[in-house]
Amino acid sequence: MSAPKKVVLAYSGGLDTSIILKWLQTEYGCEVVTFTADLGQGEELEPARKKAELLGIKPENIFIEDIREEFVRDFVFPMFRANAVYEGLYLLGTSIARPLISKRLVEIAEETGADAVAHGATGKGNDQVRFELAAYALNPDIKVIAPWREWDLSSRTKLLDFAEKNQIPIAKDKRGEAPFSVDANLLHTSSEGKVLEDPAEMAPDYVYQRTVHPEDAPNEPEIIEIGFEKGDAVSINGEALSPANLLTKLNELGGKHGIGRLDLVEGRFVGMKSRGIYETPGGTILLEAHRGIEQITLDRGAAHLKDELMPRYAELIYNGFWYSPEREMLQAAIDASQHHVTGSVKLKLYKGSARTVARWSDHSLYSEAHVTFEDDAGAYDQKDAAGFIQLNALRLKLLAARERRLKG
Amino acid sequence: MSAPKKVVLAYSGGLDTSIILKWLQTEYGCEVVTFTADLGQGEELEPARKKAELLGIKPENIFIEDIREEFVRDFVFPMFRANAVYEGLYLLGTSIARPLISKRLVEIAEETGADAVAHGATGKGNDQVRFELAAYALNPDIKVIAPWREWDLSSRTKLLDFAEKNQIPIAKDKRGEAPFSVDANLLHTSSEGKVLEDPAEMAPDYVYQRTVHPEDAPNEPEIIEIGFEKGDAVSINGEALSPANLLTKLNELGGKHGIGRLDLVEGRFVGMKSRGIYETPGGTILLEAHRGIEQITLDRGAAHLKDELMPRYAELIYNGFWYSPEREMLQAAIDASQHHVTGSVKLKLYKGSARTVARWSDHSLYSEAHVTFEDDAGAYDQKDAAGFIQLNALRLKLLAARERRLKG
Amino acid sequence: MSAPKKVVLAYSGGLDTSIILKWLQTEYGCEVVTFTADLGQGEELEPARKKAELLGIKPENIFIEDIREEFVRDFVFPMFRANAVYEGLYLLGTSIARPLISKRLVEIAEETGADAVAHGATGKGNDQVRFELAAYALNPDIKVIAPWREWDLSSRTKLLDFAEKNQIPIAKDKRGEAPFSVDANLLHTSSEGKVLEDPAEMAPDYVYQRTVHPEDAPNEPEIIEIGFEKGDAVSINGEALSPANLLTKLNELGGKHGIGRLDLVEGRFVGMKSRGIYETPGGTILLEAHRGIEQITLDRGAAHLKDELMPRYAELIYNGFWYSPEREMLQAAIDASQHHVTGSVKLKLYKGSARTVARWSDHSLYSEAHVTFEDDAGAYDQKDAAGFIQLNALRLKLLAARERRLKG
Amino acid sequence: MSAPKKVVLAYSGGLDTSIILKWLQTEYGCEVVTFTADLGQGEELEPARKKAELLGIKPENIFIEDIREEFVRDFVFPMFRANAVYEGLYLLGTSIARPLISKRLVEIAEETGADAVAHGATGKGNDQVRFELAAYALNPDIKVIAPWREWDLSSRTKLLDFAEKNQIPIAKDKRGEAPFSVDANLLHTSSEGKVLEDPAEMAPDYVYQRTVHPEDAPNEPEIIEIGFEKGDAVSINGEALSPANLLTKLNELGGKHGIGRLDLVEGRFVGMKSRGIYETPGGTILLEAHRGIEQITLDRGAAHLKDELMPRYAELIYNGFWYSPEREMLQAAIDASQHHVTGSVKLKLYKGSARTVARWSDHSLYSEAHVTFEDDAGAYDQKDAAGFIQLNALRLKLLAARERRLKG
Repeated sequence: MSAPKKVVLAYSGGLDTSIILKWLQTEYGCEVVTFTADLGQGEELEPARKKAELLGIKPENIFIEDIREEFVRDFVFPMFRANAVYEGLYLLGTSIARPLISKRLVEIAEETGADAVAHGATGKGNDQVRFELAAYALNPDIKVIAPWREWDLSSRTKLLDFAEKNQIPIAKDKRGEAPFSVDANLLHTSSEGKVLEDPAEMAPDYVYQRTVHPEDAPNEPEIIEIGFEKGDAVSINGEALSPANLLTKLNELGGKHGIGRLDLVEGRFVGMKSRGIYETPGGTILLEAHRGIEQITLDRGAAHLKDELMPRYAELIYNGFWYSPEREMLQAAIDASQHHVTGSVKLKLYKGSARTVARWSDHSLYSEAHVTFEDDAGAYDQKDAAGFIQLNALRLKLLAARERRLKG
Repeated sequence: MSAPKKVVLAYSGGLDTSIILKWLQTEYGCEVVTFTADLGQGEELEPARKKAELLGIKPENIFIEDIREEFVRDFVFPMFRANAVYEGLYLLGTSIARPLISKRLVEIAEETGADAVAHGATGKGNDQVRFELAAYALNPDIKVIAPWREWDLSSRTKLLDFAEKNQIPIAKDKRGEAPFSVDANLLHTSSEGKVLEDPAEMAPDYVYQRTVHPEDAPNEPEIIEIGFEKGDAVSINGEALSPANLLTKLNELGGKHGIGRLDLVEGRFVGMKSRGIYETPGGTILLEAHRGIEQITLDRGAAHLKDELMPRYAELIYNGFWYSPEREMLQAAIDASQHHVTGSVKLKLYKGSARTVARWSDHSLYSEAHVTFEDDAGAYDQKDAAGFIQLNALRLKLLAARERRLKG
Repeated sequence: MSAPKKVVLAYSGGLDTSIILKWLQTEYGCEVVTFTADLGQGEELEPARKKAELLGIKPENIFIEDIREEFVRDFVFPMFRANAVYEGLYLLGTSIARPLISKRLVEIAEETGADAVAHGATGKGNDQVRFELAAYALNPDIKVIAPWREWDLSSRTKLLDFAEKNQIPIAKDKRGEAPFSVDANLLHTSSEGKVLEDPAEMAPDYVYQRTVHPEDAPNEPEIIEIGFEKGDAVSINGEALSPANLLTKLNELGGKHGIGRLDLVEGRFVGMKSRGIYETPGGTILLEAHRGIEQITLDRGAAHLKDELMPRYAELIYNGFWYSPEREMLQAAIDASQHHVTGSVKLKLYKGSARTVARWSDHSLYSEAHVTFEDDAGAYDQKDAAGFIQLNALRLKLLAARERRLKG
Repeated sequence: MSAPKKVVLAYSGGLDTSIILKWLQTEYGCEVVTFTADLGQGEELEPARKKAELLGIKPENIFIEDIREEFVRDFVFPMFRANAVYEGLYLLGTSIARPLISKRLVEIAEETGADAVAHGATGKGNDQVRFELAAYALNPDIKVIAPWREWDLSSRTKLLDFAEKNQIPIAKDKRGEAPFSVDANLLHTSSEGKVLEDPAEMAPDYVYQRTVHPEDAPNEPEIIEIGFEKGDAVSINGEALSPANLLTKLNELGGKHGIGRLDLVEGRFVGMKSRGIYETPGGTILLEAHRGIEQITLDRGAAHLKDELMPRYAELIYNGFWYSPEREMLQAAIDASQHHVTGSVKLKLYKGSARTVARWSDHSLYSEAHVTFEDDAGAYDQKDAAGFIQLNALRLKLLAARERRLKG
């Protein structure tokens, strides 16, 4: 790879990406463009502008954008149509944000004539893979720079030395080492590393940042109602909300009731296992609600096929293959199932749990006429079941007959 | 089908199966053998003996058995190795009990020279299918009698008339109609029908029988520890327990903390949707714990394959194909993955939730040496990630290059 | 089911469906509408009109249609996009025709105000299922009449008696029993039953009707070229052809070279195994060609996912679930993969075989620059493979280390 | 990676691996152990001993072994139980040999106290991955040396220079470049590269080495009979044969009839597409025969599940994951299905094709009593089909009713 001339950096404004910014300038002597996105991580963006300017970035090279609506509408919601969970439990909060960041990095590179993009993910994690696969899938000629895999700033001390040497301001609370590492966006907050590295030890309470402890949650349950249209949530308690506003509102509700905490050891794509603490308050409610509305609006054949495809779909997102033909194929299948996933779900939120307690829809496939214990007025002929069973049994009978024949 | 001469009836001792017993005698003039099993449903069995005798069953034709250990060891535990859930949520508590009952019915038929078995499931549900597929898979020549599909006792009144006419004692509380229908065994209690038939209405509190309301559960969380060997739970808080005793103990813990309630609309094999309220206190804890121990002992390749196979496996059990070659194939695959699923999991039980909070194992695949944020002493070379990404990206780059070439 | 008043019958004009026609008139006293379709079975349709008139059908109730183009375009081609084969070998020639016939039956019923449709499939086969599932999926209120499951004309003699009694003309060659049963359409000819019922006996030569014996095929191979656009074949040897014309031409080529014969024992949906002799000359060539063009135009991720989904897709078609949400979901996934499946394939036809020998495309993903054994000018860095292997190996190393640790 | 001290090299005795041998000695100054295996590639092994001695390998460090029986018994046959084909067509002849070679390399390393193994695969192909993943899965601490990824002998000229400088004898026909690259073992011969690099060009006739041109095959078909036991072939025409002898015999038969040629463009695990010419004469017959015997002995449920699992299984072998938990899980499932796959298949071999024409088995599930077009004496009640269809249709009717309701 030849040296980059102009690089678009995913820039948070924090110490680490500021060091990367400087390192790119000094190591490659290249022009740096910064991209700072509001994905709902809960930090102000404007300070990033000032820091970028301070580090010598030209104003026209500073991109600061609120992409929350795009994030939820085009990434989070399509994923939730699939009921995607990784390894049975993880709602993919970090994974799903990466392709969008890469998409904007690549687009800004094309707008500004940059030949490279750079990110601050380390060489041990999944995020590097997600950033880079997405970037290459969108621009096969782009260069991707991952300083953590290249430089020799391998300890905290070396990093701080570099920062000081380069006049990068260091916030006081960054001098000491953080006791764990955090990633956040509108869908979730993840914490990992350091105090969390021993999976036999319970995570300390202070790790949780976005949800109250279930013990501290209200003593009264709260019933909410979520409306869906074609597989996507569109309202809460009757109020229509944009995708990002809806997820924000669900986060408030979930956070208040201590919903969506997860302590997980997961298998990374790069081959090792890691332990993470995830908080996905709104997403946890949304998943439950989406399953709730599918229960009455989705046919069994479609629902079971979705369940079988889901683990692969989740794995693809986890591994960074959002922009891949196979994810798009699965998405096409999933989306084809959601046309009638319209209606309302009532959920009970209480001390860490969100559970569906009622659901209704004009698109419902539930037929009280068929299922009733009462007289069904001929809707269903119980005698049909005899033939149904006989023909389902036929191959099993032939198997059993063989067994007896060979033993006899 | 020629008329049966001797029938083994799955007999609970209750009103409905007593009516069936009598009906078999009068309709077919056949000898009846009763089989009453303790599957952990929480009812005494000896009264069933007296009732059977009263209805003229010879003592040698009355079979009363405690099959709880076999149930948990050979059915529930193998299923939990798979982390089986149907339609994302249902732990299959009713489904998994049916094949064992059929197995004993068929075995008793062979011991007693009976040519038929009979069950009390209706023609609308899944249970008839499960009973009958299992019976036919074990004895291709057995006759199966399903009185609910045959007789004309189509209303409660007609049933009670038949009972009275035939001197079948009717408990006072059975005169009126039960407000919903219940099935119970050591794994769960299910309730459905009547007051539950409108899925838009919240289930009344009195439906729940086996778990306290989360609001009434203890205000203090309880931490428990479950030990596993080769995929099966073997101890609680350090005390070794037999399968049935272990599940019984988990049920107590789960019931006390309001764990394992589910309000579900599901797709039945016979084609309609139905709504059920399930309480699976111990099973819900067990599933969480099993996932917890797999997190550190199961390789990612095995874990993901298991997740992909699971929905099919669950569907097979739900549909009644426990005794089928494909269920056995899947079981072989699942069991092959469990050799090292040995270790301990700590869970926090609190007001409706059971969550893994720590896990450890001599068989752990978690490598702090690899994953650490600290210096890893060369365990992992971050530069490897560059090549890993490049080759994973290669096909995506070729795709992107095609896109550009064709547009350009 | 109340008695039908007006029935649309799938009518071939042959003896069996003429008997059905009469039986419907006499058994139900209902008005009969006939539907006779040209699906490429190679028979003239106009005689069916005369026979229908002779049996008293009003001219406005006689529907005769050439639906070959619709058949190939909307059913055969979508299925071939999936490379669908049932049980590894069967190209689904009969299965794929049934839903289209049902679709037209239901449409004609709606046009003519009929309340029922009828077909001539027996109660042992798959076709009854396919006809009826499709009919019910398109009109939930339609009645379906399957005379073979209802009447008592259970022997050839009884059928002929009924025909004579009702003045149905019997062709001389129909007096004796056919030595096997045949179904044909533009995609294939299938033969089964009677002389073919022992799968240990080789099928007699006279069973094959549509392909020459490979031994009698030309001694010279023939090279042909098939052009594809977006997954569908569009030309042969440079000549653009409509779907039906293209398949007709491939049938000629395949028939001449003895291509597409199959002797199969398959598992029917109704539970038994049956033996069929299938001839699918054009389809066999088309499948090979479609795989040929996908080899260079379809990404590995998409191709492998397609291969994994295919058996389910084929099973759905075989079992009669063309009109089901899950088939439509799979079709959406498959179709999403075919956008670039455009280009040309050269095949060699010779004495029973069709093999891809060359293929090219503007949409090709094959990169000689990458794969070459020669100097690749930096297109591919072999050192990347080291990291790729290391990270793919990491979990395997951790597994092996555990094995050693526990043994050590 | 620290420098290796003692290396076990997969040594063919040819020029390339002789250069590697020398390079290992000179580059690392390490002791070299050679392993030369007879996998049925059709070359004498003893010359390799002489060459190794000439290059200074101590006699006790020269391992020459005939591992054909182990190869077929423990690798080829288990794979054929799965009917494994990669990307619909490739029988995995190269892929399946690699793990066995690695297994012996690792075992010899442990016997001889070597700390490393080495292979002669390039950095562009799949074989490096297969060798190395297998080695690491068997010994997590082994070093693997892949000289083609390390050295600078990047052209034929440099290689020959190195050989001359190091007194490595060069056979005359190796001076010029081979027009393509070949790999062979008892299962297949593959050819790729150079003259084959343009997939739009037909492969020249001289590429094929193991099968006659179909045009030159006998004009008379040959009927053979293969006997199976529990999924593995055990006899040909009534003669019991060991696994390797059986495959050898099938290769003769297939080679003589021009069977098993394949011209394929495939997706490599490392991300690019490549074109190969494969000849798998015996394997092609074996696959057809195995499907033939499964047709009557394998239940539909098992057969369809196998078909769904197969593409993943084949992909795992192709990608080098033979020694992985997920391959072992799938193998357990597949093997669990083969208990009754016992019987005989008759095949017709003719000018490039092998087709099943008859099959029989004491374990057959085919029931003429059920399937017959004649009177079945009550084996099957056609009326059962009505109920079977009604309940399979119920969900489709509910879907159709919704569609009408919403439109109406």
